[in-house]
Amino acid sequence: MESSAILTPSQLPYLFPSKSNRKKAYPSWPCSKPRTSQPTRLHCQKMYVPGFGEASPEAKGAKNLHNFFTYIAVRIVAAQLQSYNTEAYKELMEFMDSHSLNDGDKFCASLMRESSRHKGLALRILEVRSAYCKNDFEWDNLKRVAVKMVDESNTSIMREYVLETSQAESEK
Amino acid sequence: MESSAILTPSQLPYLFPSKSNRKKAYPSWPCSKPRTSQPTRLHCQKMYVPGFGEASPEAKGAKNLHNFFTYIAVRIVAAQLQSYNTEAYKELMEFMDSHSLNDGDKFCASLMRESSRHKGLALRILEVRSAYCKNDFEWDNLKRVAVKMVDESNTSIMREYVLETSQAESEK
Repeated sequence: MESSAILTPSQLPYLFPSKSNRKKAYPSWPCSKPRTSQPTRLHCQKMYVPGFGEASPEAKGAKNLHNFFTYIAVRIVAAQLQSYNTEAYKELMEFMDSHSLNDGDKFCASLMRESSRHKGLALRILEVRSAYCKNDFEWDNLKRVAVKMVDESNTSIMREYVLETSQAESEK
Repeated sequence: MESSAILTPSQLPYLFPSKSNRKKAYPSWPCSKPRTSQPTRLHCQKMYVPGFGEASPEAKGAKNLHNFFTYIAVRIVAAQLQSYNTEAYKELMEFMDSHSLNDGDKFCASLMRESSRHKGLALRILEVRSAYCKNDFEWDNLKRVAVKMVDESNTSIMREYVLETSQAESEK
Protein backbone atom coordinates (compact mmCIF):
# COMPACT_ATOMS: atom_id res chain seq x y z
CA MET A 1 0.00 0.00 0.00
CA GLU A 2 2.92 2.38 0.28
CA SER A 3 4.66 2.51 -2.98
CA SER A 4 4.10 4.92 -6.01
CA ALA A 5 3.26 8.68 -6.97
CA ILE A 6 5.66 11.02 -8.64
CA LEU A 7 9.15 10.48 -7.47
CA THR A 8 11.54 13.21 -6.50
CA PRO A 9 15.18 13.14 -7.50
CA SER A 10 16.08 12.12 -3.95
CA GLN A 11 13.86 9.08 -4.34
CA LEU A 12 15.47 7.94 -7.55
CA PRO A 13 18.95 6.90 -6.42
CA TYR A 14 19.67 5.15 -9.71
CA LEU A 15 19.16 8.40 -11.59
CA PHE A 16 20.64 10.73 -9.04
CA PRO A 17 23.12 8.66 -7.10
CA SER A 18 24.50 9.99 -3.87
CA LYS A 19 26.17 8.24 -0.99
CA SER A 20 23.58 9.14 1.58
CA ASN A 21 20.77 7.99 -0.67
CA ARG A 22 22.23 4.61 -1.47
CA LYS A 23 21.90 3.36 2.02
CA LYS A 24 18.19 4.07 2.44
CA ALA A 25 15.30 1.88 1.50
CA TYR A 26 12.83 3.94 -0.49
CA PRO A 27 9.13 3.46 -0.31
CA SER A 28 8.37 4.14 -3.93
CA TRP A 29 4.66 4.95 -3.77
CA PRO A 30 2.59 6.89 -2.69
CA CYS A 31 4.90 9.63 -1.55
CA SER A 32 3.51 10.89 1.71
CA LYS A 33 5.90 13.76 2.25
CA PRO A 34 4.28 17.13 2.93
CA ARG A 35 4.23 19.37 -0.12
CA THR A 36 6.93 22.00 -0.32
CA SER A 37 5.97 25.52 -1.23
CA GLN A 38 8.76 25.95 -3.73
CA PRO A 39 7.46 27.18 -7.05
CA THR A 40 9.97 25.45 -9.32
CA ARG A 41 8.73 22.46 -11.22
CA LEU A 42 11.69 20.34 -10.20
CA HIS A 43 10.54 20.38 -6.60
CA CYS A 44 6.90 19.58 -7.25
CA GLN A 45 6.14 16.39 -5.41
CA LYS A 46 2.61 16.08 -6.67
CA MET A 47 1.27 13.45 -9.00
CA TYR A 48 0.70 14.56 -12.57
CA VAL A 49 -3.00 14.97 -13.28
CA PRO A 50 -3.67 14.99 -17.01
CA GLY A 51 -6.67 16.29 -18.88
CA PHE A 52 -7.46 19.52 -17.10
CA GLY A 53 -5.84 21.81 -19.65
CA GLU A 54 -5.50 25.27 -18.20
CA ALA A 55 -8.03 24.63 -15.46
CA SER A 56 -7.08 22.83 -12.27
CA PRO A 57 -8.86 20.02 -10.45
CA GLU A 58 -9.52 22.57 -7.72
CA ALA A 59 -11.25 24.89 -10.19
CA LYS A 60 -13.34 22.02 -11.49
CA GLY A 61 -14.30 21.07 -7.95
CA ALA A 62 -15.12 24.70 -7.15
CA LYS A 63 -17.35 24.95 -10.22
CA ASN A 64 -19.24 21.94 -9.00
CA LEU A 65 -19.61 23.38 -5.51
CA HIS A 66 -20.68 26.68 -7.05
CA ASN A 67 -23.74 25.04 -8.58
CA PHE A 68 -24.30 23.18 -5.34
CA PHE A 69 -24.28 26.46 -3.39
CA THR A 70 -26.87 27.92 -5.75
CA TYR A 71 -29.04 24.87 -5.19
CA ILE A 72 -28.67 25.27 -1.42
CA ALA A 73 -29.41 29.01 -1.61
CA VAL A 74 -32.63 28.26 -3.51
CA ARG A 75 -33.61 25.75 -0.83
CA ILE A 76 -32.82 28.22 1.95
CA VAL A 77 -34.80 31.04 0.35
CA ALA A 78 -37.72 28.70 -0.39
CA ALA A 79 -37.79 27.53 3.24
CA GLN A 80 -37.75 31.13 4.44
CA LEU A 81 -40.54 32.17 2.08
CA GLN A 82 -42.70 29.18 2.85
CA SER A 83 -43.59 30.48 6.30
CA TYR A 84 -44.24 34.15 5.64
CA ASN A 85 -44.73 34.73 1.93
CA THR A 86 -46.56 31.80 0.42
CA GLU A 87 -47.22 33.64 -2.83
CA ALA A 88 -43.53 34.19 -3.53
CA TYR A 89 -42.85 30.62 -2.40
CA LYS A 90 -45.35 29.31 -4.93
CA GLU A 91 -43.84 31.42 -7.70
CA LEU A 92 -40.36 30.16 -6.90
CA MET A 93 -41.56 26.55 -6.86
CA GLU A 94 -43.31 26.97 -10.21
CA PHE A 95 -40.19 28.50 -11.68
CA MET A 96 -38.10 25.59 -10.37
CA ASP A 97 -40.44 23.12 -12.03
CA SER A 98 -39.79 24.62 -15.43
CA HIS A 99 -36.10 25.53 -15.09
CA SER A 100 -33.19 23.24 -14.30
CA LEU A 101 -30.94 24.03 -11.36
CA ASN A 102 -28.00 22.14 -12.83
CA ASP A 103 -26.49 25.37 -14.07
CA GLY A 104 -26.96 27.72 -11.13
CA ASP A 105 -25.88 30.89 -12.89
CA LYS A 106 -28.22 30.27 -15.80
CA PHE A 107 -31.06 29.61 -13.38
CA CYS A 108 -30.47 32.91 -11.57
CA ALA A 109 -30.14 34.87 -14.82
CA SER A 110 -33.44 33.43 -16.10
CA LEU A 111 -35.19 34.05 -12.79
CA MET A 112 -34.06 37.65 -12.87
CA ARG A 113 -35.69 38.17 -16.26
CA GLU A 114 -39.00 36.49 -15.45
CA SER A 115 -40.72 39.42 -13.72
CA SER A 116 -39.88 42.15 -11.26
CA ARG A 117 -41.02 39.96 -8.37
CA HIS A 118 -38.85 37.13 -9.63
CA LYS A 119 -35.98 39.58 -9.90
CA GLY A 120 -36.21 40.22 -6.17
CA LEU A 121 -36.04 36.50 -5.53
CA ALA A 122 -33.04 36.13 -7.82
CA LEU A 123 -31.13 38.90 -6.07
CA ARG A 124 -31.88 37.27 -2.76
CA ILE A 125 -30.62 33.91 -3.98
CA LEU A 126 -27.39 35.55 -5.18
CA GLU A 127 -26.89 37.10 -1.77
CA VAL A 128 -27.68 33.92 0.12
CA ARG A 129 -25.29 31.79 -1.90
CA SER A 130 -22.52 34.30 -1.29
CA ALA A 131 -23.22 34.42 2.46
CA TYR A 132 -23.59 30.66 2.66
CA CYS A 133 -20.35 29.98 0.84
CA LYS A 134 -18.40 32.47 2.94
CA ASN A 135 -19.89 32.05 6.40
CA ASP A 136 -22.02 28.98 6.79
CA PHE A 137 -20.43 26.22 4.73
CA GLU A 138 -17.98 24.27 6.85
CA TRP A 139 -14.93 23.92 4.66
CA ASP A 140 -12.85 22.13 7.28
CA ASN A 141 -15.65 19.67 7.75
CA LEU A 142 -15.82 19.08 4.00
CA LYS A 143 -12.19 18.03 3.98
CA ARG A 144 -12.55 15.91 7.09
CA VAL A 145 -15.58 14.08 5.73
CA ALA A 146 -13.99 13.57 2.30
CA VAL A 147 -10.78 12.12 3.74
CA LYS A 148 -12.76 9.84 6.04
CA MET A 149 -14.93 8.77 3.13
CA VAL A 150 -11.91 7.77 1.03
CA ASP A 151 -10.44 5.74 3.88
CA GLU A 152 -13.68 3.99 4.71
CA SER A 153 -14.56 3.30 1.08
CA ASN A 154 -11.12 1.88 0.36
CA THR A 155 -11.33 -0.40 3.37
CA SER A 156 -14.83 -1.58 2.58
CA ILE A 157 -14.06 -2.23 -1.11
CA MET A 158 -11.06 -4.35 -0.15
CA ARG A 159 -12.86 -6.08 2.70
CA GLU A 160 -15.78 -7.06 0.47
CA TYR A 161 -13.43 -8.39 -2.16
CA VAL A 162 -11.51 -10.48 0.34
CA LEU A 163 -14.72 -11.83 1.88
CA GLU A 164 -16.05 -12.75 -1.57
CA THR A 165 -12.92 -14.46 -2.75
CA SER A 166 -12.20 -16.29 0.50
CA GLN A 167 -15.77 -17.60 0.45
CA ALA A 168 -15.30 -18.76 -3.15
CA GLU A 169 -12.04 -20.46 -2.15
CA SER A 170 -13.59 -22.26 0.80
CA GLU A 171 -16.47 -23.49 -1.37
CA LYS A 172 -14.12 -25.22 -3.77
CA MET B 1 -33.36 41.67 1.30
CA GLU B 2 -32.08 42.12 4.80
CA SER B 3 -34.25 40.14 7.06
CA SER B 4 -34.02 36.49 6.57
CA ALA B 5 -31.39 34.06 8.03
CA ILE B 6 -31.89 32.49 11.37
CA LEU B 7 -31.85 35.03 14.16
CA THR B 8 -30.38 34.38 17.56
CA PRO B 9 -32.02 35.56 20.76
CA SER B 10 -29.44 38.30 21.03
CA GLN B 11 -30.56 39.59 17.65
CA LEU B 12 -34.20 39.71 18.62
CA PRO B 13 -34.24 42.37 21.34
CA TYR B 14 -38.01 42.66 21.20
CA LEU B 15 -38.39 39.01 22.09
CA PHE B 16 -35.53 38.74 24.53
CA PRO B 17 -35.10 42.22 25.96
CA SER B 18 -32.01 43.00 27.95
CA LYS B 19 -30.39 46.27 28.79
CA SER B 20 -27.12 45.54 27.09
CA ASN B 21 -28.84 44.43 23.93
CA ARG B 22 -31.08 47.42 23.57
CA LYS B 23 -28.27 49.80 23.00
CA LYS B 24 -26.71 47.98 20.08
CA ALA B 25 -27.60 48.28 16.43
CA TYR B 26 -27.92 44.80 14.95
CA PRO B 27 -27.08 44.09 11.38
CA SER B 28 -29.90 41.77 10.52
CA TRP B 29 -28.55 39.90 7.51
CA PRO B 30 -26.34 38.31 6.42
CA CYS B 31 -25.00 37.74 9.82
CA SER B 32 -21.25 37.76 9.43
CA LYS B 33 -20.35 36.93 13.00
CA PRO B 34 -17.91 34.09 13.38
CA ARG B 35 -19.62 30.86 14.24
CA THR B 36 -19.61 29.90 17.88
CA SER B 37 -18.58 26.42 18.79
CA GLN B 38 -21.36 25.99 21.33
CA PRO B 39 -23.33 22.87 20.60
CA THR B 40 -26.75 24.13 21.69
CA ARG B 41 -29.19 24.87 18.94
CA LEU B 42 -30.13 28.21 20.44
CA HIS B 43 -26.71 29.62 19.54
CA CYS B 44 -26.64 28.52 15.93
CA GLN B 45 -26.31 31.58 13.76
CA LYS B 46 -26.52 29.76 10.48
CA MET B 47 -29.23 29.81 7.87
CA TYR B 48 -31.56 26.84 7.95
CA VAL B 49 -30.87 24.50 5.04
CA PRO B 50 -33.82 22.16 4.46
CA GLY B 51 -33.92 18.88 2.62
CA PHE B 52 -30.74 17.17 3.73
CA GLY B 53 -32.32 14.90 6.33
CA GLU B 54 -29.62 13.38 8.46
CA ALA B 55 -26.87 14.16 5.99
CA SER B 56 -25.28 17.59 5.83
CA PRO B 57 -24.51 19.77 2.82
CA GLU B 58 -20.85 19.13 3.66
CA ALA B 59 -21.36 15.36 3.44
CA LYS B 60 -23.15 15.76 0.13
CA GLY B 61 -20.32 17.91 -1.19
CA ALA B 62 -17.76 15.40 0.08
CA LYS B 63 -19.56 12.55 -1.66
CA ASN B 64 -19.36 14.49 -4.89
CA LEU B 65 -15.66 15.18 -4.39
CA HIS B 66 -15.14 11.51 -3.54
CA ASN B 67 -16.28 10.47 -7.00
CA PHE B 68 -14.24 13.28 -8.48
CA PHE B 69 -11.12 12.02 -6.68
CA THR B 70 -11.69 8.55 -8.07
CA TYR B 71 -11.96 10.03 -11.56
CA ILE B 72 -8.72 11.94 -11.01
CA ALA B 73 -6.97 8.85 -9.62
CA VAL B 74 -7.95 6.90 -12.73
CA ARG B 75 -6.54 9.68 -14.91
CA ILE B 76 -3.31 9.79 -12.88
CA VAL B 77 -2.80 6.02 -13.04
CA ALA B 78 -3.62 5.97 -16.76
CA ALA B 79 -1.07 8.72 -17.42
CA GLN B 80 1.56 6.83 -15.42
CA LEU B 81 0.87 3.58 -17.25
CA GLN B 82 0.80 5.15 -20.69
CA SER B 83 4.53 5.70 -20.72
CA TYR B 84 5.85 2.46 -19.27
CA ASN B 85 3.14 -0.20 -19.38
CA THR B 86 1.08 0.21 -22.52
CA GLU B 87 -0.63 -3.14 -22.08
CA ALA B 88 -2.05 -2.24 -18.69
CA TYR B 89 -2.91 1.20 -20.05
CA LYS B 90 -4.91 -0.37 -22.86
CA GLU B 91 -6.70 -2.68 -20.46
CA LEU B 92 -7.65 0.22 -18.22
CA MET B 93 -8.89 2.25 -21.17
CA GLU B 94 -10.99 -0.65 -22.42
CA PHE B 95 -12.47 -1.12 -18.98
CA MET B 96 -13.31 2.60 -18.80
CA ASP B 97 -15.14 2.38 -22.11
CA SER B 98 -17.51 -0.23 -20.76
CA HIS B 99 -17.89 1.00 -17.16
CA SER B 100 -19.12 4.35 -15.94
CA LEU B 101 -16.95 6.42 -13.62
CA ASN B 102 -19.93 8.29 -12.17
CA ASP B 103 -19.94 6.01 -9.15
CA GLY B 104 -16.27 5.74 -8.27
CA ASP B 105 -16.63 3.02 -5.65
CA LYS B 106 -18.67 0.82 -7.95
CA PHE B 107 -16.10 1.32 -10.71
CA CYS B 108 -13.25 0.22 -8.41
CA ALA B 109 -15.19 -2.77 -7.08
CA SER B 110 -15.94 -3.96 -10.63
CA LEU B 111 -12.37 -3.37 -11.77
CA MET B 112 -11.13 -5.46 -8.86
CA ARG B 113 -13.26 -8.42 -9.97
CA GLU B 114 -12.36 -8.27 -13.66
CA SER B 115 -9.08 -10.19 -13.52
CA SER B 116 -6.00 -10.41 -11.32
CA ARG B 117 -4.24 -7.82 -13.49
CA HIS B 118 -7.22 -5.51 -13.18
CA LYS B 119 -7.18 -6.09 -9.44
CA GLY B 120 -3.68 -4.62 -9.29
CA LEU B 121 -4.90 -1.57 -11.17
CA ALA B 122 -7.88 -1.18 -8.84
CA LEU B 123 -5.70 -1.34 -5.73
CA ARG B 124 -3.44 1.26 -7.23
CA ILE B 125 -6.38 3.56 -8.00
CA LEU B 126 -7.59 3.22 -4.41
CA GLU B 127 -4.16 4.17 -3.16
CA VAL B 128 -3.79 7.09 -5.52
CA ARG B 129 -7.16 8.60 -4.66
CA SER B 130 -6.31 8.40 -0.97
CA ALA B 131 -2.89 10.01 -1.47
CA TYR B 132 -4.34 12.63 -3.82
CA CYS B 133 -7.13 13.60 -1.46
CA LYS B 134 -4.79 13.85 1.53
CA ASN B 135 -1.63 15.32 0.06
CA ASP B 136 -2.08 16.75 -3.39
CA PHE B 137 -5.53 18.30 -3.56
CA GLU B 138 -5.34 21.96 -2.53
CA TRP B 139 -8.24 22.40 -0.15
CA ASP B 140 -7.46 26.03 0.64
CA ASN B 141 -7.35 26.75 -3.04
CA LEU B 142 -10.72 25.08 -3.53
CA LYS B 143 -12.28 27.45 -1.03
CA ARG B 144 -10.51 30.49 -2.47
CA VAL B 145 -11.61 29.67 -6.03
CA ALA B 146 -15.20 28.90 -4.96
CA VAL B 147 -15.57 32.16 -3.02
CA LYS B 148 -14.10 34.13 -5.92
CA MET B 149 -16.40 32.32 -8.33
CA VAL B 150 -19.50 33.27 -6.34
CA ASP B 151 -18.46 36.92 -6.19
CA GLU B 152 -17.61 37.13 -9.86
CA SER B 153 -20.71 35.26 -10.98
CA ASN B 154 -22.97 37.45 -8.87
CA THR B 155 -21.40 40.59 -10.29
CA SER B 156 -21.58 39.40 -13.87
CA ILE B 157 -25.21 38.22 -13.57
CA MET B 158 -26.23 41.61 -12.20
CA ARG B 159 -24.11 43.54 -14.67
CA GLU B 160 -25.57 41.70 -17.64
CA TYR B 161 -29.07 42.29 -16.40
CA VAL B 162 -28.48 46.01 -15.93
CA LEU B 163 -26.86 46.31 -19.37
CA GLU B 164 -29.77 44.49 -20.99
CA THR B 165 -32.47 46.50 -19.29
CA SER B 166 -30.78 49.87 -19.70
CA GLN B 167 -30.37 49.12 -23.40
CA ALA B 168 -34.04 48.22 -23.66
CA GLU B 169 -34.95 51.45 -21.88
CA SER B 170 -32.87 53.61 -24.16
CA GLU B 171 -34.35 51.98 -27.25
CA LYS B 172 -37.86 53.00 -26.25
